[in-house]
Amino acid sequence: MNYERPNIQRMTGYASGEQPSQADAIKLNTNENPYPASAAVADALRACRVEDLRRYPPPLADSFRRVAADYHRLDPDNIIPTNGGDELLRLIITTFADPGQILAIAEPSYSLYPVLADIQGCQIARIPLQDDWSMPEDFVERLNSSGAKLAFVVNPHAPSGHLASEQELRRIAERFQGILVIDEAYVDFIDPQLSYDSTDLVREFNNVLILRTMSKGYSLAGLRFAYGLGASSLLSPMLYKTRDSYNTDYISQVLATAALADARGAAVSWQKVRQERDRLQTELAALGFLCAPSQSNFILAQAPAGESPEAGSIYQQLKQRDILVRYFDQPRLRDKLRITVGTPQENSQLLAALGEILSS
Amino acid sequence: MNYERPNIQRMTGYASGEQPSQADAIKLNTNENPYPASAAVADALRACRVEDLRRYPPPLADSFRRVAADYHRLDPDNIIPTNGGDELLRLIITTFADPGQILAIAEPSYSLYPVLADIQGCQIARIPLQDDWSMPEDFVERLNSSGAKLAFVVNPHAPSGHLASEQELRRIAERFQGILVIDEAYVDFIDPQLSYDSTDLVREFNNVLILRTMSKGYSLAGLRFAYGLGASSLLSPMLYKTRDSYNTDYISQVLATAALADARGAAVSWQKVRQERDRLQTELAALGFLCAPSQSNFILAQAPAGESPEAGSIYQQLKQRDILVRYFDQPRLRDKLRITVGTPQENSQLLAALGEILSS
Repeated sequence: MNYERPNIQRMTGYASGEQPSQADAIKLNTNENPYPASAAVADALRACRVEDLRRYPPPLADSFRRVAADYHRLDPDNIIPTNGGDELLRLIITTFADPGQILAIAEPSYSLYPVLADIQGCQIARIPLQDDWSMPEDFVERLNSSGAKLAFVVNPHAPSGHLASEQELRRIAERFQGILVIDEAYVDFIDPQLSYDSTDLVREFNNVLILRTMSKGYSLAGLRFAYGLGASSLLSPMLYKTRDSYNTDYISQVLATAALADARGAAVSWQKVRQERDRLQTELAALGFLCAPSQSNFILAQAPAGESPEAGSIYQQLKQRDILVRYFDQPRLRDKLRITVGTPQENSQLLAALGEILSS
Repeated sequence: MNYERPNIQRMTGYASGEQPSQADAIKLNTNENPYPASAAVADALRACRVEDLRRYPPPLADSFRRVAADYHRLDPDNIIPTNGGDELLRLIITTFADPGQILAIAEPSYSLYPVLADIQGCQIARIPLQDDWSMPEDFVERLNSSGAKLAFVVNPHAPSGHLASEQELRRIAERFQGILVIDEAYVDFIDPQLSYDSTDLVREFNNVLILRTMSKGYSLAGLRFAYGLGASSLLSPMLYKTRDSYNTDYISQVLATAALADARGAAVSWQKVRQERDRLQTELAALGFLCAPSQSNFILAQAPAGESPEAGSIYQQLKQRDILVRYFDQPRLRDKLRITVGTPQENSQLLAALGEILSS
């Protein structure tokens, strides 16, 4: 007998990026930070004792919420800590979208959204991005005419790295009849000269939720700690009703707090990634790749046309050399590779391998 | 505008046990182990580095699953690791119960079940336990006539500590038309002479799911790591579809693996708790309390009748002395206190305080 709900029987789960078994593989496929967390975080980890784990953790991670409120010049009531960004996305859907209701996404986007919609029994409305990966002029009209309860926008966009401006997002928030979720997983890698900051939207609107994570910018993907920013009226049902009672553990609370308090330490890695992003973009172009301008820690690179091997073949040949990048076999992406920016040495090894593959 | 779903608007969230702000409070209210995790776990924590956190963790916690499979003489496909037991309970409901369907619980029980039912929009069927907290003879008939898709049984039972035998559970599993969830959060404190072991049910039935946690027996409540045992046909949709992609973090995987591999180290604490449970039971009886026989790490103690203060008043007076126990203001429980077994010193301080309160 199969006990699964019909919608669960029908659905397909999310496929995580590959985890190489070889320790020396060059892993440029899941957008991890190539540099470890700062010394302040290492110190915080060393100070953790098993005695501290005997009791339940603070259920709401209040120390973290205070530090995050200071960092963003918001109130602790505007902060919800979660077990990775995926938990926040799931909680948003659980709390605000009834089965049968509609979630809208910009297409292409993070492939987890349709999976979470399937689990909740929701429908997905897909609004195609333009050729340069920007949102179409009539994005908000299409959101409203789809009847979407929630709209998910990744900014900087994945898998392209395209950045929408705060003004674009404000225009959507003003007129969208549902909740706008801005997934800012990669926000730390934006060029600081652009002065991008969308947190004013949280102060201005009660239908904006911003996702931030310690996974990428703070080199803590293994820790599972993210947080949401939003009006307290939006966060309150997730904080006090739908969240698992102790959703973040003691060590992750301590380390995430130390990491955010030492954002300047993490910012050293952001700057290195930006420099290498520029170099990688230039050298990929020299090899014949067409790269979308990226404000993230990855580059979406279209394989050279003509006689060259196709993107899927390049991906396979890189993998044979123990270099992992991400290949999406789907419309608009199957001629491209998404390449995480690594250390200078990793990037050089990637470029050398690409040079060999293209000239063979 | 309120964006919450109607069922979320209507519901009340779960209330966690109090977290005392005073470090020296005697905390006997949330059933934590009074002794820290073993030296093997402390060593594993010391070996963790922030560099290990840079990458995403193994999504399925495979090292833990192998150790747990060995420990229970099952296959890794029979093990699902989760971010605390609460995540497993939620996943079970998400995966197997459609909104509007019925979940059955033995009453009284863990107060999280009705909260999880509300979130999913499910109904709760409550089947009262008998006066000695055992399940009634016709328990499975009542489950089936309620139309329940899922039945949740805590064994040893909370808040009483009553233990149902493996044979009782087998009779339910054989005849129940839904999935039987056996929440064994407190299983490690059962007297080993009783030879309780329900894992055979996982081998025999494809409708049995057992919850185990590292929170209590292994002194790791702050870590958030639990796991389910079940037929692979039952676990597979949760492992590959409904679980958050990286639901357990790297450090919790490492520490939980070390803890389960060193179960003999943890067993030292279980034996100490059993000895103190016996003493506490005897001395509470001498003070006039009526105690349900407990196979757990807590005791449900009915306040002395007659001229004595009522249970709610005793709870308050203990709290004024910085001694926290649990008081449930609900039918069948409001004349009782649930007292976690602490260290010998903590228990003696509790008994002394109770003596004072009762004679004042």
